[in-house]
Amino acid sequence: MSDLGWNPLHGVPSYPAERYAILADRIGGILRSRSDIVLVQAEAVVALEAVAASLARPGLSALNIVTSPYGGWFGQWLRRGGAAVQDVVAEPGLPIEIEAVARALDAGPHIDVLAVVHAESANGILNPLPEILALARARGIVTVVDAVASVGGHRLDVDHLGIDIAVIGPQKALGGPAGVSALSLSARAWDLILSGGAPRDSILSLADLRTWVDGGRRALPGTPAPLEFFALEVALDRIEAEGLENVVARHALAASATRAGLTALGAPAWVPAAKASNLVTAVPMPAGLAPDALIAAAGRLGVEVTEGVGTTPVRLMRLNHTGPRASFQTVLSNVVAYGAALSQAGHDCDIAAAAEAVCEVYSR
Amino acid sequence: MSDLGWNPLHGVPSYPAERYAILADRIGGILRSRSDIVLVQAEAVVALEAVAASLARPGLSALNIVTSPYGGWFGQWLRRGGAAVQDVVAEPGLPIEIEAVARALDAGPHIDVLAVVHAESANGILNPLPEILALARARGIVTVVDAVASVGGHRLDVDHLGIDIAVIGPQKALGGPAGVSALSLSARAWDLILSGGAPRDSILSLADLRTWVDGGRRALPGTPAPLEFFALEVALDRIEAEGLENVVARHALAASATRAGLTALGAPAWVPAAKASNLVTAVPMPAGLAPDALIAAAGRLGVEVTEGVGTTPVRLMRLNHTGPRASFQTVLSNVVAYGAALSQAGHDCDIAAAAEAVCEVYSR
Amino acid sequence: MSDLGWNPLHGVPSYPAERYAILADRIGGILRSRSDIVLVQAEAVVALEAVAASLARPGLSALNIVTSPYGGWFGQWLRRGGAAVQDVVAEPGLPIEIEAVARALDAGPHIDVLAVVHAESANGILNPLPEILALARARGIVTVVDAVASVGGHRLDVDHLGIDIAVIGPQKALGGPAGVSALSLSARAWDLILSGGAPRDSILSLADLRTWVDGGRRALPGTPAPLEFFALEVALDRIEAEGLENVVARHALAASATRAGLTALGAPAWVPAAKASNLVTAVPMPAGLAPDALIAAAGRLGVEVTEGVGTTPVRLMRLNHTGPRASFQTVLSNVVAYGAALSQAGHDCDIAAAAEAVCEVYSR
Amino acid sequence: MSDLGWNPLHGVPSYPAERYAILADRIGGILRSRSDIVLVQAEAVVALEAVAASLARPGLSALNIVTSPYGGWFGQWLRRGGAAVQDVVAEPGLPIEIEAVARALDAGPHIDVLAVVHAESANGILNPLPEILALARARGIVTVVDAVASVGGHRLDVDHLGIDIAVIGPQKALGGPAGVSALSLSARAWDLILSGGAPRDSILSLADLRTWVDGGRRALPGTPAPLEFFALEVALDRIEAEGLENVVARHALAASATRAGLTALGAPAWVPAAKASNLVTAVPMPAGLAPDALIAAAGRLGVEVTEGVGTTPVRLMRLNHTGPRASFQTVLSNVVAYGAALSQAGHDCDIAAAAEAVCEVYSR
Repeated sequence: MSDLGWNPLHGVPSYPAERYAILADRIGGILRSRSDIVLVQAEAVVALEAVAASLARPGLSALNIVTSPYGGWFGQWLRRGGAAVQDVVAEPGLPIEIEAVARALDAGPHIDVLAVVHAESANGILNPLPEILALARARGIVTVVDAVASVGGHRLDVDHLGIDIAVIGPQKALGGPAGVSALSLSARAWDLILSGGAPRDSILSLADLRTWVDGGRRALPGTPAPLEFFALEVALDRIEAEGLENVVARHALAASATRAGLTALGAPAWVPAAKASNLVTAVPMPAGLAPDALIAAAGRLGVEVTEGVGTTPVRLMRLNHTGPRASFQTVLSNVVAYGAALSQAGHDCDIAAAAEAVCEVYSR
Repeated sequence: MSDLGWNPLHGVPSYPAERYAILADRIGGILRSRSDIVLVQAEAVVALEAVAASLARPGLSALNIVTSPYGGWFGQWLRRGGAAVQDVVAEPGLPIEIEAVARALDAGPHIDVLAVVHAESANGILNPLPEILALARARGIVTVVDAVASVGGHRLDVDHLGIDIAVIGPQKALGGPAGVSALSLSARAWDLILSGGAPRDSILSLADLRTWVDGGRRALPGTPAPLEFFALEVALDRIEAEGLENVVARHALAASATRAGLTALGAPAWVPAAKASNLVTAVPMPAGLAPDALIAAAGRLGVEVTEGVGTTPVRLMRLNHTGPRASFQTVLSNVVAYGAALSQAGHDCDIAAAAEAVCEVYSR
Repeated sequence: MSDLGWNPLHGVPSYPAERYAILADRIGGILRSRSDIVLVQAEAVVALEAVAASLARPGLSALNIVTSPYGGWFGQWLRRGGAAVQDVVAEPGLPIEIEAVARALDAGPHIDVLAVVHAESANGILNPLPEILALARARGIVTVVDAVASVGGHRLDVDHLGIDIAVIGPQKALGGPAGVSALSLSARAWDLILSGGAPRDSILSLADLRTWVDGGRRALPGTPAPLEFFALEVALDRIEAEGLENVVARHALAASATRAGLTALGAPAWVPAAKASNLVTAVPMPAGLAPDALIAAAGRLGVEVTEGVGTTPVRLMRLNHTGPRASFQTVLSNVVAYGAALSQAGHDCDIAAAAEAVCEVYSR
Repeated sequence: MSDLGWNPLHGVPSYPAERYAILADRIGGILRSRSDIVLVQAEAVVALEAVAASLARPGLSALNIVTSPYGGWFGQWLRRGGAAVQDVVAEPGLPIEIEAVARALDAGPHIDVLAVVHAESANGILNPLPEILALARARGIVTVVDAVASVGGHRLDVDHLGIDIAVIGPQKALGGPAGVSALSLSARAWDLILSGGAPRDSILSLADLRTWVDGGRRALPGTPAPLEFFALEVALDRIEAEGLENVVARHALAASATRAGLTALGAPAWVPAAKASNLVTAVPMPAGLAPDALIAAAGRLGVEVTEGVGTTPVRLMRLNHTGPRASFQTVLSNVVAYGAALSQAGHDCDIAAAAEAVCEVYSR
């Protein structure tokens, strides 16, 4: 009897073992990576923790760029595993300065691993990834890039940039499920992970996933969650149908229109365009206003505005234009609703001009 | 062995036979109808055709109020079945005048059946349903109300209004699936349908559905399409969680904000509020503009604007705020995108004021 | 902005208009038909009623082969439209004899249309389709084949057999959704349908679907039910992955094992293999037994056994091995549970031998 | 505007924050636990690893009962965290003897934590849970029960048995999704976890989940995977509709019929009924046979037979009757297909008698 790929006796369709390899190859295509792609059966923050847990060991020296709480956690996880970690911390709410990275690399001891978040959803900044990677490559450092928020919202060419470990999640710009994530791992990354001490038999073990790669990329370790893999396929179908470059362009347009709208509103974005992510736009809250009141006022319009995460000199509000939200409708509504919330809080702003500005950017 | 309600051997879960009655009762609750609710396994236009086919016969006399192509089809279907049909046609693009209905009823021969569309998605008008029904009730006429577009967008109290046959679909204001529809049928309606000549063994046979009612409302005639029924349950869950009155209020707000926005834009809606549906708003297109160009310009912003259907002195464009579209985001985007499309076509309009007006209505 | 193929603003994904043509082509592949394939947005019995309604008119002469209630309904629908219909009725519960068809064609008046059901799910018989079609082709008769139950369970090569109108549903051997169906229509079929009198603006109008074909096979008439079309894609994916010939072979194996099991049980199938469908196997119930008791006894094991439909000299029980049920598990359980039900009813039978026989056929 | 519970702008419905608490309460109902129920957003093996990681610390002393590889991993995870772990290892492939547990508790140092797997899917055994827990309770030991495989297949009354930490997954006997799991945690368990040293900001941190409990059980830490939670609701709907006791009884019946079938086949189960799980039945493979050949032979019938995991004096094959597989169809097919596989391998066995025996148990 031929294999139906779906045994109705089992109640829930299981994910066919031969399709994991196809999934991995499709993700490799999106990342423009010819390295090994491995799938992690949990949300992307688990994949990040697994990277730290799999790299960390006494004797390992890491430079950890911190531009949000995520970077902070990554440093903690490395330290928990015994690594010596030097944090390079950006000015609050700003991208890292490339000079600060260069200084740390030049001043410090030998560095084995450098970790950086590409684009931050916490505060809407974009780190100077190509420049950072160039510094690391020149020094033979293994690089870890948290591209969970940026994949699909910014260009990310893993092989061309020379990223050793890139971590992505489908649930942001790719508009997919949250219970699965993926990594691209170079040969150098594998060498370091497997050179001893890496945990095994753990959700945090990348070495377990190397066994999966070596075994032909069929059944993943543990019990697979088929819903996530089927949903990932659907998300990839959509991304491939739209075209990855169009997806990135759609996010860039959303960011650009949001910024124009905020400027016209009289509440300009926190960082200049060159330092801003395409996923969320952070805007400083006028002094004296309460974030909860703004959030509630926008919420009454059905628009979600959230407070920025992390320490900044001023409090930041975030307008989200990630994934399906990277659309004219959401961008326009976000800006206008934020303006309405400011107005209700007694802060003068020009909703009319803001709407016109958003429309103008989208109509170019 | 106990009944699992789902036999995995069958591959596709079948819809449990005992849940049809529960579905029907929930729909009765939404319609505030204690009459029989029957389910039709096809989109709502089929339910309408079934009503006409099941009522029509030589000797039957019908007054058919025509305010869009839907009304026209209903008359055709009645005539195809041998009924004598008198159409009462509204001014193009306008609701019927209650006086015209009264005149037709007074002047004409004895009328058995009166048919009317509650709210028209074709041109955005609302017919004066309570007044029409009062006239019909006073004369003992069996009434047929096409509430496919209006259910969930306007109050519709079947028992209180005394509607004999109401036809609804879940795919518009209720935000549900399109492949199933439902009818409420009074005892008088059944009497007329079953009094002879009604088709049997047909998708267009309501008499077949009476057999279903009499047999305990379990397996529907034919092969059930379980996906539609499961999706209908989910839609009803959502409606009941939001509360039907809140759903109606959300549509009224969307209509009101759309009208305010269009007025501020300098392109006021086609009919006054009292004659307008809460589902779509029709707006006369400035002379000399091509609808395709406006549709394409809005489409470039990801906003769907469509041309009105049917004959009107001027061409109408429609902004849709039905179901999940009855939201601040969609209403604002619709109005602004329509304004942008007009501007691009060289027609001056005030997008800024329009956005402010929409915002103002939603912020009250 | 590029088209996302899915507008999240609309709440429920709509079926992309450009995919209807792809669906139709894939169904054409399964039917080995290069004629027009049209999609009907309702279960297959509606497609059959639409064929009858679209062909029937005064002056049309039809030969209708009746081997179950379905054939009976088809004749009724033709007559309702004014056609002159001659039924050729098989012996109760048996396929039609080819000689009876020949005699009817030779004796009768000129025949325009011949209709036949390929395989009957009502009583498990298979009609001699190639022979019947040869007779019809030789006389220039337009042929209608109800292949709803047979598609996927038997070879069905529409072009090679010269079928003018074939009607299929995805919900049986193809294991797909029930709320959509399809037809293959030859040029001769269209000529007859369009030659005057065909209904328009109706769920029963094939002429409406010709307009869809001529208009580029995009939006179907009416409101599409996207769930059904997405589910149909998934079913076609599965069929194409398994291979249509393997699907047919799987049904043939299930039928063959069922028959062997029943023979070993001491309760042989109703018709010989050459006259039997691969979808369900009918077995005569021993005299004196009550069908409800057998159905209940099998049901207590979680196995569904149903009574045959239609008039036969003896009452028939049906074992279903269609679609996902065409598997070793279902066939074995069906036969053993039927044996257990007979035993409980006091009718001696050899369950052990039956299980061995099923196993033996599947192990060849 | 009221909260729709689903924002269509966001593309994928998010899981409403207020429903996590409802989910937890429903799981508490299934476990008959009034302790805190926490949800882990990953498969159950991650929940187990989290328990070990959250309890383990230098100075903690644990008794770890090992009856399969799962127990082995749990001991490793505890040791990794610095705990002193004493493994009590059962005879290969057998449940632990209660005397061995008593001896270890009496002989050893003070024990803080005792861990045991309730029913093993690796080899089909059932440990004497009530007796083990009685020993632990008498000594004030915090108990950890891996009930991932047993929940739904065996009675499991957490409060009555006095289990401090129970770990479950919905993907086995409950027939639900695999990407989510749950724990019941007593006040004593929380005290030990929070008494210092527990990891934070980690997928393996139960302390993070205590923060979730204390914060009102709304948004889970990290990014929620809505598909898993919606699917868990559906699984709970089904379990509650069938009734948990009926679910357990269905598994007991499946186990009992499988054992009877295997005995009749001449290949009796590995352990006596009192020591066997209701989820899978292990059967010793006759000497000289290759497991792959048996697996392939059963696979040709579409039946999945797998090899037991772990060390046993003889190699074990497993017949799975868990969740939707706990049905007459699967049990009968499993036994008969296993018999057919043995026959093909030249090992005489009585398929006919086996089928009859399965049928007889199900027909009682």
